[in-house]
Amino acid sequence: MFRPQIKVCDCTIRDGGLMNDSHFPKEMVRHVFSCLARSGVDIIELGYRNSRTMFDPAKFGLWRFTDDDLIREVTDGVEFAGKIAVMQDAHKAFAEDLAPADQSPVSLVRVATYVHDIDKAIHLANTAVEKGYEATINVMSISHAIERELDEALQQIEEETKVSAVYIVDSFGNLYSEDVDFYVDKFRRYLKSCELGIHCHNPQQLAFANTIQGIIRNVNWLDGTLYGLGRGAGNCPIELLMSFLKNPKFNIAPLLEAIGKEIIPLQKDIFWGYSIPYMLSGVLNIHPKEAMRIMALPDSDPEKVDYVSLFHRLGDV
Amino acid sequence: MFRPQIKVCDCTIRDGGLMNDSHFPKEMVRHVFSCLARSGVDIIELGYRNSRTMFDPAKFGLWRFTDDDLIREVTDGVEFAGKIAVMQDAHKAFAEDLAPADQSPVSLVRVATYVHDIDKAIHLANTAVEKGYEATINVMSISHAIERELDEALQQIEEETKVSAVYIVDSFGNLYSEDVDFYVDKFRRYLKSCELGIHCHNPQQLAFANTIQGIIRNVNWLDGTLYGLGRGAGNCPIELLMSFLKNPKFNIAPLLEAIGKEIIPLQKDIFWGYSIPYMLSGVLNIHPKEAMRIMALPDSDPEKVDYVSLFHRLGDV
Repeated sequence: MFRPQIKVCDCTIRDGGLMNDSHFPKEMVRHVFSCLARSGVDIIELGYRNSRTMFDPAKFGLWRFTDDDLIREVTDGVEFAGKIAVMQDAHKAFAEDLAPADQSPVSLVRVATYVHDIDKAIHLANTAVEKGYEATINVMSISHAIERELDEALQQIEEETKVSAVYIVDSFGNLYSEDVDFYVDKFRRYLKSCELGIHCHNPQQLAFANTIQGIIRNVNWLDGTLYGLGRGAGNCPIELLMSFLKNPKFNIAPLLEAIGKEIIPLQKDIFWGYSIPYMLSGVLNIHPKEAMRIMALPDSDPEKVDYVSLFHRLGDV
Repeated sequence: MFRPQIKVCDCTIRDGGLMNDSHFPKEMVRHVFSCLARSGVDIIELGYRNSRTMFDPAKFGLWRFTDDDLIREVTDGVEFAGKIAVMQDAHKAFAEDLAPADQSPVSLVRVATYVHDIDKAIHLANTAVEKGYEATINVMSISHAIERELDEALQQIEEETKVSAVYIVDSFGNLYSEDVDFYVDKFRRYLKSCELGIHCHNPQQLAFANTIQGIIRNVNWLDGTLYGLGRGAGNCPIELLMSFLKNPKFNIAPLLEAIGKEIIPLQKDIFWGYSIPYMLSGVLNIHPKEAMRIMALPDSDPEKVDYVSLFHRLGDV
């Protein structure tokens, strides 16, 4: 039995871009998009729509900016019944980088924000809605949020926006199922006019499980990525999520095709998935950047497996 | 806040032995044992006590038989406050292979059984208890159990044994949290005189989450392995489990030492952890042996990432 209100959003190119500075070849993105479209996924987030004034285009790939023309190039001719999304970081993006929605292949703008940037996020989301897009606000680093500030931010979102969904984003993969319950209850208390979403990271191997916990608590907007590709240990693997959801419109075979052909080869150069450095980031509730540095060391470097020193070093937070 | 009744059992050498025919060097096991002992773990399962008439000693390593003398060799001189365990497979072990408990370094015998071998398991467990050991019965492949037979087996265990705990064993990693709830409730309904245990596998990245779900439902005997080493996708990583449990007697630093020095190097030869072949085994509720064959193929073999064909082939069950 499935819940028709559930919407699955694939973030492979967007969150995966945090592992390679958004350098994906266009042909790869076109194939991934085509596979995702055939899988029946509801939303495909193709990258960030962040500002070239905040990220150097000489360093970052096209999917950090994800212009409308670029999207057309990789999606034209591919049948897709769902929505194409881009993400804007509240502190690194500008409203003027969105064309009116009727001139754009994008129909959903997801605004990622820290609690302390909520006013910027509301401005971006409201501009997107005024321009004809659907919008969401995705509250990042939830495990670092100061509760009083979070409460106020949620109240503001309810009063000042018309977003379709507000996401709980467990950026550091620190939440256990009881924490998911806590945040879902809190978000629902303030947010009466929109859906809730959940976006999980995997340092403690709980991204899929916490997404299920969200489903149990009536969260309907769910994020995943192919083979979990994403920052640090990565995200909820969308192939697991779609296998769990019983909606007959979903088909995991095209996801497996994309993983075998496009995602597995990336493992030569980037290192996501479960590992002790990422695990420690999750347990200790810290950003995975130091863990990412360690994961990128050559196998011959003894620091790479000196987990005890890393644990003691990261433990002083 | 922690629950003092909880007992954590490490199965690294036992379940990990299913990936290398139990061929671990003695020095490696001695170091692993010493790290586990320092971590404060309650039970260390050092291998199978199966019969040399059922496994060819020319093919299988010492930890498939785990004689008392072998255990003494790797544990003598190491301070350990917990219990040493061995596992006996109901259909591959004999009661006469246990010495009287007061002549053995082992104090716990864990009997693994399919539902249809429950009479053999009860015989083994009862013999172990008569000889002075504690015993558990671990009901394997729970996701394949026929419910009427399972009910009868649980009733028999309650009436005919004095085991300390009965385990729910999700051999195929097929259970979701709602299934854990279902089996815990069922086991508890029949088993009034012993603790419940849970042993999870990880093809769907749910081993740790389902162990937490067991904890929430008052399961007190919990299995894990270092870095999840175990059959197929492996087990609940004990370093995650101990980080979750707040008992101050636990210390994960020695676990990290063992993982860095002894477990990571095994990845050169054996392939556990999340992968699409294992994931499909879990989703389709089948034994991981075909997935294990595929994971052992060389990277150059195109079959290794032809996940779509594998999915269609495994789907006919």
